[in-house]
Amino acid sequence: MEIDGKELYMASIKDVAKLAGVGLGTASRVINNKGSVKPTTREKVLRAIRELNYTPNEVARSFQSQSSKLVGLIIPTVWHPFFSELTYYVENELYKRGYKMMLCNSDAEANKEIDYLEMLKRHQVAGIIAITYSDFTGFGTIDLPMVSIDRYINDKIPHVASNNYEGGKKAAEALIKGGAQKLAYVGGIPLFKSSVSERKKALIEVAKKHNRPYVVHETLPSDNQIDLTVKEFLKLYPDVDGVFTSTDLFAGALIKELNNQGKKVPEDVQVVGFDGIQNNDFFKPILSTVVQPVEGIGRKSVEILLNLIDKKEITYETILDVSYRKGDTTK
Amino acid sequence: MEIDGKELYMASIKDVAKLAGVGLGTASRVINNKGSVKPTTREKVLRAIRELNYTPNEVARSFQSQSSKLVGLIIPTVWHPFFSELTYYVENELYKRGYKMMLCNSDAEANKEIDYLEMLKRHQVAGIIAITYSDFTGFGTIDLPMVSIDRYINDKIPHVASNNYEGGKKAAEALIKGGAQKLAYVGGIPLFKSSVSERKKALIEVAKKHNRPYVVHETLPSDNQIDLTVKEFLKLYPDVDGVFTSTDLFAGALIKELNNQGKKVPEDVQVVGFDGIQNNDFFKPILSTVVQPVEGIGRKSVEILLNLIDKKEITYETILDVSYRKGDTTK
Repeated sequence: MEIDGKELYMASIKDVAKLAGVGLGTASRVINNKGSVKPTTREKVLRAIRELNYTPNEVARSFQSQSSKLVGLIIPTVWHPFFSELTYYVENELYKRGYKMMLCNSDAEANKEIDYLEMLKRHQVAGIIAITYSDFTGFGTIDLPMVSIDRYINDKIPHVASNNYEGGKKAAEALIKGGAQKLAYVGGIPLFKSSVSERKKALIEVAKKHNRPYVVHETLPSDNQIDLTVKEFLKLYPDVDGVFTSTDLFAGALIKELNNQGKKVPEDVQVVGFDGIQNNDFFKPILSTVVQPVEGIGRKSVEILLNLIDKKEITYETILDVSYRKGDTTK
Repeated sequence: MEIDGKELYMASIKDVAKLAGVGLGTASRVINNKGSVKPTTREKVLRAIRELNYTPNEVARSFQSQSSKLVGLIIPTVWHPFFSELTYYVENELYKRGYKMMLCNSDAEANKEIDYLEMLKRHQVAGIIAITYSDFTGFGTIDLPMVSIDRYINDKIPHVASNNYEGGKKAAEALIKGGAQKLAYVGGIPLFKSSVSERKKALIEVAKKHNRPYVVHETLPSDNQIDLTVKEFLKLYPDVDGVFTSTDLFAGALIKELNNQGKKVPEDVQVVGFDGIQNNDFFKPILSTVVQPVEGIGRKSVEILLNLIDKKEITYETILDVSYRKGDTTK
């Protein structure tokens, strides 16, 4: 280490033990906060640490213990407002608990997801929190503590999700309360068993219960052209008057297209989104939407992962409550 | 490593060397892609790697070489759309170049910034990219390769920024072109030497050149109450008709308050923001704004940092072009 041209000596654990007049094992127990050490001895070691300005080397430490205080977060893209909010809370909760976070943007591409999983294994992270879309069959079992968000992968991997069914129910009921006669669900098709499909299921059940006709229009997640999807949808079903979209961005695109076609929201067509990405009321319209408990999902995922790492008992399915927030796009 | 209950044997570099019939040094040179190895020998080693399904252990590797393929990114909060876009591009560029990224949200708090810097040193990251606001005097010299975004720290740390002066000039000229008679700048006060203050400087110079009166209204960055700031500003200066704000979010808050007071944008007051955070045209108004080259800032910062790590020649000041995008809030 060099500071302003002056070579500095980096103290090692041996130097600490020597100055404190204790054995290496004792110094290590104090530094790693493991095992019992007499209070007076501990004080001597801590004084030596301060005096020598000793910094434990995390890399050497994780090499020795074969573990680390690093957690990997795999998400499609931090650019999307929902994922950036989630990333903020995951990192914040990890920081509070003494862990650091490696961020991986997979762009929802299978090869990048697998690549990141292998990379995280090589880096010996303590665990992984992930929102994934790939088929892991070819990858074998993930032999690292892992928490999956939104998606059930298998019985061994705990997952955390919003109550998507409740969200869909609240959205559909809001549309009906506003007088919608013909309902619709517009969104992406989940490729794997994902609790996201519960949103659609709930709308269908509410429509049936209230004897309202309904339609479903879905696109593949790889088909990013939201604008095209909503145009196609309105061409196929010009008579719907209450639409629940799988995300707020879908709702935004739909409202724009409705306006282009001279239809008024919510007078002619009501729209309810999902996510709750609008963090301010500067830009209009304010969407009527189902707000996901993003902070809760982030913090809970960390809590479960760290319990898993510490081999404590955990819950394998965690479903968090959502809320409906009325905006300008419903009556 | 266990897969489906079967204990698997993890191959080591020794196994690779043995199977390939080469020395340990040769195997290491192929694995680390360093030094010269005969093509036929290289092929033998690569075949052994594939056969044994050998995975290099990054932790052991960085322990041995005292370096790692990890880069730390320190930003105020990934939640803000400008920073989430930047984070996406930094991570994407690092991924392309074989590096991984540790994300640190400092909340722009001095103690968290210092804490993260020390943590990153302990983890022996290869380098740091940071947007910081603290006074580092007490922290000493940062003895790791580092690139600073937006802010000049000292002559030894390269920095990358948007051409803030050009941006301010474009904003002010757009307001004048739209007929503004009394100009204003509203924003946060940069605590340290930051190129962000160039935005204000440019507006003042353009106003002087065109003989327009102008006012400046700034708040401390810790004072997060944008809503309050814009209210205060409009109370003090009810007669301005062309406002340039330091960020798009400031512009959004100002427009909302103007509307509350019955003033029309852009008819009564024109507003130009800075950042270019609106990635779609779903929510109105579409701001007239100065668009930062976020992708360029992210990728260029990575390029400079990796050159610094590899001890190649670098540029210490990189200023990237901005563009003006006309929206609904100017005439």
